[in-house]
Amino acid sequence: MRKVRLYIAQSLDGFIAREDGKVDWLEVEPGGEEPGTDYGYAEFLAQIDTTLMGYNTYREILGFGIPFPYPDKTNYVFSRNHKKEDENPVEFISSDATGFVANLKSDSGKDIWLIGGAELNRVLLDAGLIDEIIVTTKSTLLGSGIPLFGKGNESNGFYFQSVQLLDKHFIQYTLQKK
Amino acid sequence: MRKVRLYIAQSLDGFIAREDGKVDWLEVEPGGEEPGTDYGYAEFLAQIDTTLMGYNTYREILGFGIPFPYPDKTNYVFSRNHKKEDENPVEFISSDATGFVANLKSDSGKDIWLIGGAELNRVLLDAGLIDEIIVTTKSTLLGSGIPLFGKGNESNGFYFQSVQLLDKHFIQYTLQKK
Repeated sequence: MRKVRLYIAQSLDGFIAREDGKVDWLEVEPGGEEPGTDYGYAEFLAQIDTTLMGYNTYREILGFGIPFPYPDKTNYVFSRNHKKEDENPVEFISSDATGFVANLKSDSGKDIWLIGGAELNRVLLDAGLIDEIIVTTKSTLLGSGIPLFGKGNESNGFYFQSVQLLDKHFIQYTLQKK
Repeated sequence: MRKVRLYIAQSLDGFIAREDGKVDWLEVEPGGEEPGTDYGYAEFLAQIDTTLMGYNTYREILGFGIPFPYPDKTNYVFSRNHKKEDENPVEFISSDATGFVANLKSDSGKDIWLIGGAELNRVLLDAGLIDEIIVTTKSTLLGSGIPLFGKGNESNGFYFQSVQLLDKHFIQYTLQKK
Protein backbone atom coordinates (compact mmCIF):
# COMPACT_ATOMS: atom_id res chain seq x y z
CA MET A 1 0.00 0.00 0.00
CA ARG A 2 1.19 3.53 -0.76
CA LYS A 3 2.37 5.56 2.18
CA VAL A 4 1.08 9.01 3.12
CA ARG A 5 4.13 11.00 4.12
CA LEU A 6 3.84 14.33 5.90
CA TYR A 7 6.97 16.20 4.78
CA ILE A 8 6.99 19.69 6.21
CA ALA A 9 9.06 22.47 7.77
CA GLN A 10 8.34 24.14 11.08
CA SER A 11 9.80 26.74 13.40
CA LEU A 12 11.58 25.80 16.62
CA ASP A 13 8.32 26.48 18.43
CA GLY A 14 6.36 24.17 16.15
CA PHE A 15 4.66 26.57 13.73
CA ILE A 16 4.44 25.79 10.02
CA ALA A 17 3.50 29.37 9.11
CA ARG A 18 2.91 32.80 10.60
CA GLU A 19 -0.61 33.59 11.78
CA ASP A 20 -1.28 35.02 8.29
CA GLY A 21 0.03 31.88 6.56
CA LYS A 22 3.36 33.34 5.43
CA VAL A 23 6.49 31.16 5.36
CA ASP A 24 9.03 33.88 4.54
CA TRP A 25 10.89 33.08 7.80
CA LEU A 26 11.99 29.75 6.29
CA GLU A 27 14.40 31.49 3.94
CA VAL A 28 17.98 31.31 5.07
CA GLU A 29 20.10 34.42 5.09
CA PRO A 30 22.63 34.59 2.23
CA GLY A 31 25.57 32.27 2.77
CA GLY A 32 23.71 30.19 5.32
CA GLU A 33 23.05 27.18 3.14
CA GLU A 34 25.75 25.07 1.56
CA PRO A 35 25.60 25.32 -2.24
CA GLY A 36 24.10 22.30 -3.94
CA THR A 37 22.63 20.83 -0.78
CA ASP A 38 18.92 20.06 -0.93
CA TYR A 39 18.78 17.87 2.20
CA GLY A 40 17.13 14.98 0.40
CA TYR A 41 14.29 16.98 -1.16
CA ALA A 42 14.90 15.79 -4.74
CA GLU A 43 15.13 12.19 -3.53
CA PHE A 44 11.85 12.59 -1.65
CA LEU A 45 10.13 14.15 -4.68
CA ALA A 46 11.19 11.19 -6.81
CA GLN A 47 9.45 8.81 -4.41
CA ILE A 48 6.02 10.44 -4.60
CA ASP A 49 3.59 10.94 -7.48
CA THR A 50 0.71 12.58 -5.61
CA THR A 51 0.34 15.59 -3.33
CA LEU A 52 -2.37 16.53 -0.82
CA MET A 53 -2.92 20.03 0.45
CA GLY A 54 -5.53 22.15 2.12
CA TYR A 55 -6.91 25.17 0.32
CA ASN A 56 -5.04 27.69 2.47
CA THR A 57 -1.75 25.93 1.78
CA TYR A 58 -2.53 25.89 -1.94
CA ARG A 59 -3.21 29.64 -1.90
CA GLU A 60 0.05 30.20 -0.05
CA ILE A 61 1.99 28.22 -2.66
CA LEU A 62 0.38 30.28 -5.44
CA GLY A 63 1.45 33.42 -3.59
CA PHE A 64 5.13 32.52 -3.97
CA GLY A 65 4.98 34.16 -7.41
CA ILE A 66 6.41 31.12 -9.21
CA PRO A 67 4.71 28.61 -11.53
CA PHE A 68 2.87 25.82 -9.69
CA PRO A 69 5.81 23.73 -8.45
CA TYR A 70 4.49 20.17 -8.90
CA PRO A 71 3.25 19.99 -12.50
CA ASP A 72 4.35 16.37 -12.93
CA LYS A 73 2.42 15.14 -9.86
CA THR A 74 -1.25 14.43 -9.29
CA ASN A 75 -2.28 17.23 -6.95
CA TYR A 76 -5.36 17.29 -4.75
CA VAL A 77 -6.57 20.43 -3.01
CA PHE A 78 -9.09 19.86 -0.24
CA SER A 79 -11.69 22.53 -0.04
CA ARG A 80 -15.28 22.51 1.07
CA ASN A 81 -16.16 25.69 -0.78
CA HIS A 82 -13.84 26.21 -3.73
CA LYS A 83 -14.82 23.57 -6.22
CA LYS A 84 -14.21 25.27 -9.52
CA GLU A 85 -11.17 24.47 -11.62
CA ASP A 86 -8.33 26.89 -12.19
CA GLU A 87 -5.36 27.02 -14.57
CA ASN A 88 -3.11 24.82 -12.45
CA PRO A 89 -2.78 21.02 -12.61
CA VAL A 90 -4.78 20.48 -9.43
CA GLU A 91 -8.05 18.76 -8.64
CA PHE A 92 -10.33 20.25 -5.99
CA ILE A 93 -11.83 17.74 -3.59
CA SER A 94 -14.88 18.78 -1.60
CA SER A 95 -15.86 15.34 -0.34
CA ASP A 96 -14.69 13.81 2.95
CA ALA A 97 -10.87 13.89 3.02
CA THR A 98 -10.44 10.69 5.03
CA GLY A 99 -12.49 8.52 2.68
CA PHE A 100 -10.78 10.04 -0.34
CA VAL A 101 -7.28 9.50 1.04
CA ALA A 102 -8.06 5.96 2.23
CA ASN A 103 -9.08 5.14 -1.35
CA LEU A 104 -5.96 6.78 -2.76
CA LYS A 105 -3.77 4.67 -0.50
CA SER A 106 -5.32 1.47 -1.76
CA ASP A 107 -4.66 2.49 -5.38
CA SER A 108 -1.36 1.55 -6.97
CA GLY A 109 1.32 4.18 -7.38
CA LYS A 110 4.20 5.88 -5.64
CA ASP A 111 3.92 7.40 -2.19
CA ILE A 112 1.70 10.39 -1.38
CA TRP A 113 3.06 13.69 -0.08
CA LEU A 114 0.89 15.34 2.54
CA ILE A 115 2.01 18.97 2.13
CA GLY A 116 -0.33 20.33 4.83
CA GLY A 117 -1.59 22.42 6.45
CA ALA A 118 -2.72 22.18 10.04
CA GLU A 119 -6.36 21.26 9.51
CA LEU A 120 -5.77 18.57 6.87
CA ASN A 121 -2.87 17.17 8.90
CA ARG A 122 -5.11 16.87 11.95
CA VAL A 123 -7.96 15.20 10.06
CA LEU A 124 -5.66 12.61 8.49
CA LEU A 125 -3.76 12.07 11.76
CA ASP A 126 -6.97 11.36 13.68
CA ALA A 127 -8.06 8.94 10.96
CA GLY A 128 -4.76 7.04 11.26
CA LEU A 129 -3.95 7.74 7.62
CA ILE A 130 -0.47 9.26 8.05
CA ASP A 131 2.33 6.68 7.76
CA GLU A 132 5.42 8.82 8.07
CA ILE A 133 6.25 12.28 9.40
CA ILE A 134 9.40 14.06 8.18
CA VAL A 135 9.87 17.40 9.90
CA THR A 136 12.56 19.95 9.15
CA THR A 137 12.82 22.29 12.13
CA LYS A 138 14.38 25.75 11.77
CA SER A 139 16.13 27.44 14.68
CA THR A 140 13.82 30.46 14.39
CA LEU A 141 11.31 31.01 17.19
CA LEU A 142 8.22 32.57 15.62
CA GLY A 143 6.40 33.35 18.86
CA SER A 144 3.02 32.62 17.32
CA GLY A 145 1.63 31.03 14.17
CA ILE A 146 -0.18 28.08 12.66
CA PRO A 147 0.75 24.77 14.35
CA LEU A 148 1.80 21.59 12.55
CA PHE A 149 -1.44 19.93 13.62
CA GLY A 150 -4.65 21.67 14.49
CA LYS A 151 -5.73 21.35 18.11
CA GLY A 152 -6.96 17.87 18.94
CA ASN A 153 -6.49 14.65 20.83
CA GLU A 154 -3.31 13.06 22.13
CA SER A 155 -1.59 10.66 19.77
CA ASN A 156 1.11 8.11 20.56
CA GLY A 157 1.02 6.47 17.16
CA PHE A 158 4.55 7.31 15.99
CA TYR A 159 8.13 6.58 16.93
CA PHE A 160 11.36 8.32 15.94
CA GLN A 161 13.34 6.59 13.24
CA SER A 162 16.16 9.06 12.64
CA VAL A 163 17.33 12.62 13.21
CA GLN A 164 19.98 14.69 11.52
CA LEU A 165 21.71 18.04 11.97
CA LEU A 166 21.45 19.57 8.48
CA ASP A 167 23.33 22.76 9.29
CA LYS A 168 23.29 25.36 12.05
CA HIS A 169 19.81 26.50 11.01
CA PHE A 170 18.04 23.19 10.47
CA ILE A 171 17.52 19.72 11.91
CA GLN A 172 15.39 17.04 10.30
CA TYR A 173 13.72 14.06 11.96
CA THR A 174 11.62 11.19 10.70
CA LEU A 175 8.89 9.32 12.55
CA GLN A 176 7.20 6.11 11.47
CA LYS A 177 3.73 4.92 12.33
CA LYS A 178 3.82 2.22 15.00
CA MET B 1 30.15 34.50 32.98
CA ARG B 2 27.81 31.71 34.03
CA LYS B 3 25.45 30.39 31.39
CA VAL B 4 21.69 30.20 31.71
CA ARG B 5 20.74 26.86 30.18
CA LEU B 6 17.14 26.01 29.38
CA TYR B 7 17.05 22.22 29.74
CA ILE B 8 13.53 20.94 29.17
CA ALA B 9 11.35 18.24 27.65
CA GLN B 10 8.51 18.81 25.23
CA SER B 11 5.99 16.90 23.17
CA LEU B 12 6.35 16.47 19.41
CA ASP B 13 3.95 19.38 19.01
CA GLY B 14 6.01 21.63 21.27
CA PHE B 15 4.15 21.50 24.58
CA ILE B 16 6.01 21.23 27.88
CA ALA B 17 2.87 20.24 29.81
CA ARG B 18 -0.81 19.53 29.39
CA GLU B 19 -3.18 22.48 29.71
CA ASP B 20 -3.49 21.63 33.43
CA GLY B 21 0.31 21.55 33.89
CA LYS B 22 0.64 17.76 34.10
CA VAL B 23 3.70 16.01 32.62
CA ASP B 24 2.56 12.41 33.07
CA TRP B 25 2.81 11.88 29.29
CA LEU B 26 6.62 12.10 29.57
CA GLU B 27 6.78 8.71 31.26
CA VAL B 28 7.86 5.93 28.96
CA GLU B 29 5.91 2.69 28.89
CA PRO B 30 7.66 -0.21 30.64
CA GLY B 31 10.55 -1.59 28.64
CA GLY B 32 10.81 1.52 26.52
CA GLU B 33 13.94 2.96 28.09
CA GLU B 34 17.28 1.22 28.16
CA PRO B 35 18.31 0.39 31.72
CA GLY B 36 20.93 2.69 33.16
CA THR B 37 20.61 5.32 30.46
CA ASP B 38 20.00 8.86 31.70
CA TYR B 39 20.75 10.64 28.42
CA GLY B 40 23.28 13.00 29.97
CA TYR B 41 21.05 14.22 32.81
CA ALA B 42 23.54 13.44 35.61
CA GLU B 43 26.31 15.13 33.65
CA PHE B 44 24.13 18.20 33.14
CA LEU B 45 23.19 18.32 36.85
CA ALA B 46 26.88 18.28 37.79
CA GLN B 47 27.48 21.39 35.68
CA ILE B 48 24.88 23.57 37.40
CA ASP B 49 24.54 24.82 40.95
CA THR B 50 21.43 26.98 40.60
CA THR B 51 17.91 26.45 39.28
CA LEU B 52 15.26 28.94 38.13
CA MET B 53 11.59 28.11 37.89
CA GLY B 54 8.24 29.77 37.74
CA TYR B 55 5.72 29.23 40.50
CA ASN B 56 3.48 26.93 38.45
CA THR B 57 6.44 24.72 37.55
CA TYR B 58 7.46 24.61 41.22
CA ARG B 59 3.95 23.52 42.21
CA GLU B 60 4.02 20.85 39.53
CA ILE B 61 7.35 19.48 40.83
CA LEU B 62 5.91 19.33 44.36
CA GLY B 63 2.95 17.42 42.96
CA PHE B 64 5.22 14.54 41.87
CA GLY B 65 4.90 13.18 45.42
CA ILE B 66 8.67 12.93 45.92
CA PRO B 67 11.03 15.02 48.08
CA PHE B 68 12.14 18.27 46.44
CA PRO B 69 14.59 16.92 43.83
CA TYR B 70 17.36 19.59 43.93
CA PRO B 71 18.28 19.92 47.63
CA ASP B 72 21.97 20.53 46.85
CA LYS B 73 21.28 23.43 44.44
CA THR B 74 20.38 27.05 45.02
CA ASN B 75 16.77 27.19 43.85
CA TYR B 76 14.85 30.32 42.92
CA VAL B 77 11.10 30.33 42.40
CA PHE B 78 9.72 33.38 40.60
CA SER B 79 6.37 34.47 41.87
CA ARG B 80 4.70 37.84 42.05
CA ASN B 81 2.27 36.77 44.75
CA HIS B 82 3.65 33.88 46.76
CA LYS B 83 6.40 35.37 48.85
CA LYS B 84 6.23 33.29 51.97
CA GLU B 85 8.79 30.61 52.68
CA ASP B 86 7.97 26.92 52.76
CA GLU B 87 9.76 23.80 54.00
CA ASN B 88 11.77 23.29 50.79
CA PRO B 89 15.24 24.69 50.01
CA VAL B 90 13.90 27.36 47.66
CA GLU B 91 13.92 31.14 47.70
CA PHE B 92 10.89 33.01 46.38
CA ILE B 93 11.69 35.97 44.15
CA SER B 94 9.01 38.57 43.58
CA SER B 95 11.22 41.25 42.02
CA ASP B 96 11.84 41.65 38.29
CA ALA B 97 13.15 38.31 36.95
CA THR B 98 15.38 39.83 34.26
CA GLY B 99 17.34 42.05 36.64
CA PHE B 100 17.66 39.24 39.15
CA VAL B 101 18.93 36.75 36.58
CA ALA B 102 21.31 39.27 35.00
CA ASN B 103 22.87 39.75 38.43
CA LEU B 104 23.07 36.00 39.01
CA LYS B 105 24.90 35.54 35.73
CA SER B 106 27.56 38.05 36.73
CA ASP B 107 28.16 36.22 40.02
CA SER B 108 30.72 33.45 40.14
CA GLY B 109 29.56 29.85 40.17
CA LYS B 110 28.53 26.98 37.97
CA ASP B 111 25.92 27.28 35.24
CA ILE B 112 22.26 28.05 35.91
CA TRP B 113 19.45 25.67 34.97
CA LEU B 114 16.34 27.36 33.68
CA ILE B 115 13.74 24.69 34.45
CA GLY B 116 10.82 26.71 33.08
CA GLY B 117 7.95 27.20 32.50
CA ALA B 118 6.53 29.06 29.54
CA GLU B 119 6.18 32.52 31.07
CA LEU B 120 9.63 32.63 32.70
CA ASN B 121 11.21 31.18 29.54
CA ARG B 122 9.60 33.93 27.45
CA VAL B 123 10.66 36.75 29.80
CA LEU B 124 14.28 35.58 29.88
CA LEU B 125 14.31 34.88 26.13
CA ASP B 126 13.10 38.38 25.32
CA ALA B 127 15.74 39.83 27.65
CA GLY B 128 18.49 37.89 25.84
CA LEU B 129 19.43 36.10 29.05
CA ILE B 130 19.22 32.49 27.78
CA ASP B 131 22.57 31.17 26.53
CA GLU B 132 21.74 27.59 25.65
CA ILE B 133 18.59 25.60 24.90
CA ILE B 134 18.61 21.82 25.33
CA VAL B 135 15.31 20.28 24.32
CA THR B 136 14.35 16.64 24.63
CA THR B 137 11.38 16.00 22.35
CA LYS B 138 9.10 13.03 22.86
CA SER B 139 7.26 11.36 19.99
CA THR B 140 3.90 11.96 21.68
CA LEU B 141 1.55 14.49 20.11
CA LEU B 142 -0.39 16.12 22.93
CA GLY B 143 -2.84 18.05 20.76
CA SER B 144 -2.92 20.98 23.17
CA GLY B 145 -0.98 22.22 26.19
CA ILE B 146 1.45 24.78 27.55
CA PRO B 147 4.06 25.82 24.96
CA LEU B 148 7.84 25.96 25.55
CA PHE B 149 7.72 29.75 25.34
CA GLY B 150 4.74 31.95 26.03
CA LYS B 151 3.39 33.79 23.02
CA GLY B 152 5.68 36.61 21.92
CA ASN B 153 7.98 38.05 19.31
CA GLU B 154 10.08 36.29 16.69
CA SER B 155 13.59 35.38 17.75
CA ASN B 156 16.50 34.36 15.54
CA GLY B 157 19.05 34.43 18.33
CA PHE B 158 20.03 30.75 18.38
CA TYR B 159 21.64 28.18 16.14
CA PHE B 160 21.65 24.38 16.31
CA GLN B 161 24.79 22.85 17.73
CA SER B 162 23.88 19.17 17.85
CA VAL B 163 21.04 16.69 17.70
CA GLN B 164 20.78 13.09 18.79
CA LEU B 165 18.36 10.18 18.52
CA LEU B 166 18.12 8.95 22.12
CA ASP B 167 15.78 6.07 21.41
CA LYS B 168 12.57 5.53 19.48
CA HIS B 169 10.67 7.81 21.87
CA PHE B 170 13.08 10.73 22.26
CA ILE B 171 15.39 13.04 20.35
CA GLN B 172 17.50 15.75 22.00
CA TYR B 173 18.88 18.89 20.41
CA THR B 174 21.05 21.73 21.64
CA LEU B 175 21.04 25.34 20.48
CA GLN B 176 23.56 28.01 21.34
CA LYS B 177 23.03 31.74 21.48
CA LYS B 178 24.49 33.46 18.42
